[in-house]
Amino acid sequence: METAILLLSCPDSRGIVAKISNFLYQNNGNIVHADQHIDSESNTLFMRIEWALGGFSLAKEDIAGAFEPLAGEFKMKWQLYFSGNTPRVAIFVSQHLHCLYDLLLRYRGGQFNCEIPLIVSNHSDAHQVAQNFNISLCEFPILKENKIEQEKKQIELLRKEKIDVIILARYAQIFTKQFVDTFPNKVINIHHSFLPAFIGQAPYRQAYTRGVKIIGATSHYVTEELDAGPIIEQDTVRVSHRDSLEDLRRKGEDLERMVLSRAVKWHLERKILVYNNKTVVFD
Amino acid sequence: METAILLLSCPDSRGIVAKISNFLYQNNGNIVHADQHIDSESNTLFMRIEWALGGFSLAKEDIAGAFEPLAGEFKMKWQLYFSGNTPRVAIFVSQHLHCLYDLLLRYRGGQFNCEIPLIVSNHSDAHQVAQNFNISLCEFPILKENKIEQEKKQIELLRKEKIDVIILARYAQIFTKQFVDTFPNKVINIHHSFLPAFIGQAPYRQAYTRGVKIIGATSHYVTEELDAGPIIEQDTVRVSHRDSLEDLRRKGEDLERMVLSRAVKWHLERKILVYNNKTVVFD
Amino acid sequence: METAILLLSCPDSRGIVAKISNFLYQNNGNIVHADQHIDSESNTLFMRIEWALGGFSLAKEDIAGAFEPLAGEFKMKWQLYFSGNTPRVAIFVSQHLHCLYDLLLRYRGGQFNCEIPLIVSNHSDAHQVAQNFNISLCEFPILKENKIEQEKKQIELLRKEKIDVIILARYAQIFTKQFVDTFPNKVINIHHSFLPAFIGQAPYRQAYTRGVKIIGATSHYVTEELDAGPIIEQDTVRVSHRDSLEDLRRKGEDLERMVLSRAVKWHLERKILVYNNKTVVFD
Amino acid sequence: METAILLLSCPDSRGIVAKISNFLYQNNGNIVHADQHIDSESNTLFMRIEWALGGFSLAKEDIAGAFEPLAGEFKMKWQLYFSGNTPRVAIFVSQHLHCLYDLLLRYRGGQFNCEIPLIVSNHSDAHQVAQNFNISLCEFPILKENKIEQEKKQIELLRKEKIDVIILARYAQIFTKQFVDTFPNKVINIHHSFLPAFIGQAPYRQAYTRGVKIIGATSHYVTEELDAGPIIEQDTVRVSHRDSLEDLRRKGEDLERMVLSRAVKWHLERKILVYNNKTVVFD
Repeated sequence: METAILLLSCPDSRGIVAKISNFLYQNNGNIVHADQHIDSESNTLFMRIEWALGGFSLAKEDIAGAFEPLAGEFKMKWQLYFSGNTPRVAIFVSQHLHCLYDLLLRYRGGQFNCEIPLIVSNHSDAHQVAQNFNISLCEFPILKENKIEQEKKQIELLRKEKIDVIILARYAQIFTKQFVDTFPNKVINIHHSFLPAFIGQAPYRQAYTRGVKIIGATSHYVTEELDAGPIIEQDTVRVSHRDSLEDLRRKGEDLERMVLSRAVKWHLERKILVYNNKTVVFD
Repeated sequence: METAILLLSCPDSRGIVAKISNFLYQNNGNIVHADQHIDSESNTLFMRIEWALGGFSLAKEDIAGAFEPLAGEFKMKWQLYFSGNTPRVAIFVSQHLHCLYDLLLRYRGGQFNCEIPLIVSNHSDAHQVAQNFNISLCEFPILKENKIEQEKKQIELLRKEKIDVIILARYAQIFTKQFVDTFPNKVINIHHSFLPAFIGQAPYRQAYTRGVKIIGATSHYVTEELDAGPIIEQDTVRVSHRDSLEDLRRKGEDLERMVLSRAVKWHLERKILVYNNKTVVFD
Repeated sequence: METAILLLSCPDSRGIVAKISNFLYQNNGNIVHADQHIDSESNTLFMRIEWALGGFSLAKEDIAGAFEPLAGEFKMKWQLYFSGNTPRVAIFVSQHLHCLYDLLLRYRGGQFNCEIPLIVSNHSDAHQVAQNFNISLCEFPILKENKIEQEKKQIELLRKEKIDVIILARYAQIFTKQFVDTFPNKVINIHHSFLPAFIGQAPYRQAYTRGVKIIGATSHYVTEELDAGPIIEQDTVRVSHRDSLEDLRRKGEDLERMVLSRAVKWHLERKILVYNNKTVVFD
Repeated sequence: METAILLLSCPDSRGIVAKISNFLYQNNGNIVHADQHIDSESNTLFMRIEWALGGFSLAKEDIAGAFEPLAGEFKMKWQLYFSGNTPRVAIFVSQHLHCLYDLLLRYRGGQFNCEIPLIVSNHSDAHQVAQNFNISLCEFPILKENKIEQEKKQIELLRKEKIDVIILARYAQIFTKQFVDTFPNKVINIHHSFLPAFIGQAPYRQAYTRGVKIIGATSHYVTEELDAGPIIEQDTVRVSHRDSLEDLRRKGEDLERMVLSRAVKWHLERKILVYNNKTVVFD
């Protein structure tokens, strides 16, 4: 059963919900999910509404045009998705393969509504995994000298492959502003700390040295500033003095896998709205 | 700012959301919160909608009547509340006073939108707490012989005091069917285990004997069957072989306080719908 | 660096720790880990002591004999292990392969000190995984009529392969008493509920129907009574009315993988003592 | 039953455990708890050993002297405590009273082995709580001009009252180096964030602005550098876009109470060793 999903935000005012639900009702829409949130500090309404396309009186290609006037009236930022238009995903990875493996197993198990035609890596470690799962892997070794050039080639490839979502599954390279700007709110990273603690390099080592009693992992959209983009999901696990740095890594990898997979799932199900460098997640 | 809160459930069908939001819009209602949930197994819609009374064109006493036709059309079960009509709460307690203390501190700190005019106990331990917080305590010692009679007197008192909500803050007595039927979905209990594990007496002892690695607490509405009512909230905490039975009690009491207080808060904010011996909690 | 590990329990009395540590010191033993626990209810001492074999003045094969008199004096139950004697593990699985995959990935990643020469299944679903990881899979289809016979063949195979530990990674068959008795405290199961809640069949369905707000997973040693053996590890995750039965399964599978892998790791590192149908886990 | 508690750390080497346990055994000591930890990075042994004084052949006042040679031989840093010597605690508080209340309720409930003769505040809000619990409160209003002078008076008072432990239960003042140096590893603070995230002022506001999905609380020993002392305990709780800043505060206060009370309990039971700006907690 295909559905349409409308994600929107706008200044809150009387009648918005009524007019949107009328729009759907008059076109014979059957709502299957609806969520809304009003941020009272900024007086902003956030909404996600999903309805069945079966029986809907507008054709897919006519919905946006029909909705446009309403959107204009309320100054909405909005996006319209169809569950049948499966997003195309590329996974970037370096040498730690646990997140990659986890994503691919969930993908194969049917947890993600997407296609994954492409793995990109700056190393060669992931070749066998890619082969096992029958996905092409493109290797882009990155040196200081060729970084910008390689990024350009990556962008070309991503465009050619019509990639909608980029998942950094422990990809140990920082993108340039240009790359980030090309895919706004479309690059999902997993950082192996409880952000904003332990930004940057070697967060487990940092956590171990600081002597924290809990470690975390954070999935966020990538923005120009390192590890500072809108947070999608976080989780934590208890550690103690008995845990070595290696134990922190091992426990943390379990967190990374779960946190990243939740963020990816929500993104693919169009459950995330970004505003003000934060996220509304209609989970 | 006073608000009206509508809680409803009904068979799901096209147009419900549109008609409800139109009803509000046509009466100049400004929605401040709205949540809905569709249980696809039973095709049931659950909804909680809260709007500002300031500027609403219907007087409080006319809203129910005006809404009635719509409710009838969709076969809704519904309740209408006003945030200004503060619920009156009675707390029942026996000899463990930690939950009582916790509730009263939160009450005094402004976390609960209610009045607490009454504490009921089958013991005398709570007298000083009641006095400190300036709340009357009525003692009803319970013996096998006088149980039914005492319950009748309790019901009388609760009616006289116009009590809307009864919190069992570790009240170590089981009510008769008659008492329970008098206050359907209005008696909130805290059970000191992760239900349905360890029903009944001495759950910490049961947990200790079984050797579990996690203990829990459960807040639920009281129904005729012991510890089997709709669950509102649960939480758990890790234990180990190093924890004595006394440690389980101590750790568990922290859970009990938090779990009970969350359930009470949600109930008072009219965020809970009961169906099918389960709860929808719009938190 | 190879180590020796002594796991023991005995009635607590003065001088035990002194005599054990003297025994090690006099033989030039360098302790690398030591943990102890006194259960004051039963006045029982539990101890795990691990020391480097490098420089130890007794040969591996002479340690047990030299320790015997001390063990006898204090009526110890004890076991001696060497980290260099890698345990041989068989994984049993049916049709849900997520735990199997998870174990094999951790195994390959070096998290488990063991060899896994064998996968056993009553179905054919796991063949490709087994092949990917280059492990033999033996299929034993089980029907009511052939159950006892098949179990006998399994026992034979396990003996032939010198299997020390059996992991039931969602193996959907109940063993006979005979099988269980053959491998006491050596069969580790994952049950997909927070035991003792939801014993037996379809625990996610049971949890969904009961309307719990948290679900769990439990790893335990298998005993004759179903889902009633000593609990090694448990964990929980929050669910809500928004979670379908399918969501419970998906969230639960993440728990199962983590809980089972922790239990396996502790078992392989000889960190678990069983007493009184409970476990002491020196994590 | 009074016990002696020895807390020690020293470079790890063969024979330490043997010699310490012999020392106890030869003096007829009955160990009731023993924990040790070897930090392999720094090759340091940490130990906590607790034995019954009943039947011990050395008088309390002779134990330290008798142990001294052994301590010297292994270059131990060590402290000897007696459970009968109840520590004297002062609680510092400003205007948020939830932690103060929580500590006093646990104290009255017998959870803490200490005496609390004194509350210190820079405000007058806590007077009634102090009175309810029958504890003297000394008010030291703090201005820029009188800060150093007031601190001197506080130190005098703490000395006069023979205070061993100072708990900062949301005390909104930063101490001078002089104050901190006077009570090394004896001042326990609760910071209302997951350190090292959100150091300093208004951590809930910082967390809200950053859009984190989990908030935390941290209890640590106070050192000269703000919020940078050895962490004793931390905990976290999930938040979402639905949580207002006020909700973060409310949820966070529950964390603060629990985290602080655990840290205090462990400190009073002499379960904490500080090294390298971290803690070993033998919980």
